[in-house]
Amino acid sequence: MIKVSIIGTGNVAYHLAKEFEHSENVELIEIISRSTINNDKFLSNKQSTNLSFPKDADVYIIAVSDSAIEEVAQDLKTQNKLVVHTSGGTELHVLHHHDRKGAFYPLQTFSKLKKVNFSEIPICIEAENENDYKLLEALGLSISNNINRINSKQRKALHVAAVFVCNFVNHLYAIGQEICNQNKVDFKLLQPLILETANKILELSPIDAQTGPAKRNDTQTIAAHLNFLTNENQSLLYKTLTQSIIDYGKKL
Amino acid sequence: MIKVSIIGTGNVAYHLAKEFEHSENVELIEIISRSTINNDKFLSNKQSTNLSFPKDADVYIIAVSDSAIEEVAQDLKTQNKLVVHTSGGTELHVLHHHDRKGAFYPLQTFSKLKKVNFSEIPICIEAENENDYKLLEALGLSISNNINRINSKQRKALHVAAVFVCNFVNHLYAIGQEICNQNKVDFKLLQPLILETANKILELSPIDAQTGPAKRNDTQTIAAHLNFLTNENQSLLYKTLTQSIIDYGKKL
Repeated sequence: MIKVSIIGTGNVAYHLAKEFEHSENVELIEIISRSTINNDKFLSNKQSTNLSFPKDADVYIIAVSDSAIEEVAQDLKTQNKLVVHTSGGTELHVLHHHDRKGAFYPLQTFSKLKKVNFSEIPICIEAENENDYKLLEALGLSISNNINRINSKQRKALHVAAVFVCNFVNHLYAIGQEICNQNKVDFKLLQPLILETANKILELSPIDAQTGPAKRNDTQTIAAHLNFLTNENQSLLYKTLTQSIIDYGKKL
Repeated sequence: MIKVSIIGTGNVAYHLAKEFEHSENVELIEIISRSTINNDKFLSNKQSTNLSFPKDADVYIIAVSDSAIEEVAQDLKTQNKLVVHTSGGTELHVLHHHDRKGAFYPLQTFSKLKKVNFSEIPICIEAENENDYKLLEALGLSISNNINRINSKQRKALHVAAVFVCNFVNHLYAIGQEICNQNKVDFKLLQPLILETANKILELSPIDAQTGPAKRNDTQTIAAHLNFLTNENQSLLYKTLTQSIIDYGKKL
């Protein structure tokens, strides 16, 4: 039984706590937040605000915003315990107040309102010695089948790539919805296309899956689309992405 | 039984022909291409190059590249027959050589190598009179449950929006893969994130689903990411999309 404490009450902390609570191999000891306890009734009996005297656990998971990790790690008073953060873009040295440190980065987008199937989520693990790695691996395997040994530089690359394939992609969905709204078309009509575009890359590499006027360098359609767009921001995105696809095609 | 002829041998023509061939309510009469017959053995007994003397059908579907539609429509010699194109971005008047015209636009991305579930594909239909609309509706219902009456302006909006949520999105997948390759990380690690990002918008609007450093205006992470990217094109896309997300947030 691995004893775990979670520090934080955001989306990642919430989803990890839920998963550990349902795992047979993990005992969730405590959920610590810095300030007042969350109003959320979820696991309220385990909530604490005391970083100075945390309960005894095998692993302390700091799941707070990147900019707060170092301060929280400093305030967390433990000795010779494994302390990890869950951040894609943060180096291990921000945990320098602790002898044993690591990263436990679940590569997924979390919203409190949306359930996720944790068993398929890649968990990217880094530790400074083999025993701590094994401990984090066992912890990861208690909630996912997709555990990966990833160093700091690779984790950072994944984090940046994730911004492209998740945050930026979602913003393009928002632009698509904006264009639909402006022209009184139901955005739902685009849902099958959105799902197929995502599913396609399970079978084809994105480069082989590329279609559309930019890929064909179809200047007539590109001009017609730019003429159709009335919003300056939409036009700028259209031009920048179209040029990138054209340039990309030349490189291949 | 609706008798259909398809003009064209590209991805849309191929997938439509396959679906109609398996439909009980449609008889696929002929597949006409302008030049030499495709090497493809698919339905080779139905292939023809003769646009001047097409076999008798109820609907002629021109599924060729946008820039070729008008010329093909002119060469297609029929009288008092319904002639439609399958293009999102093309007006009906390019079919002006024909008395009865319409659009039959399947809103999906097609690759010959990738199977699609046609029954969920939105088919956007336009016709100039109610009888022709009913005929196209029946034709659409023979292969899909998702038939929509869409006028030319709405179809154009959908086509532009589709470029954002499909072509541009796929290009961002390609950039994500490029970043992974440059840093020796397996792109497969991003697949669950890509699928979840797409699936999320079935439950949340893209605006509510937005996450990431740009959404939080987390200037420290944004600077770190820009510092990490070594490729000028990646940096330009990162900056442009980040600024768009920040500006979008201010408008809400």
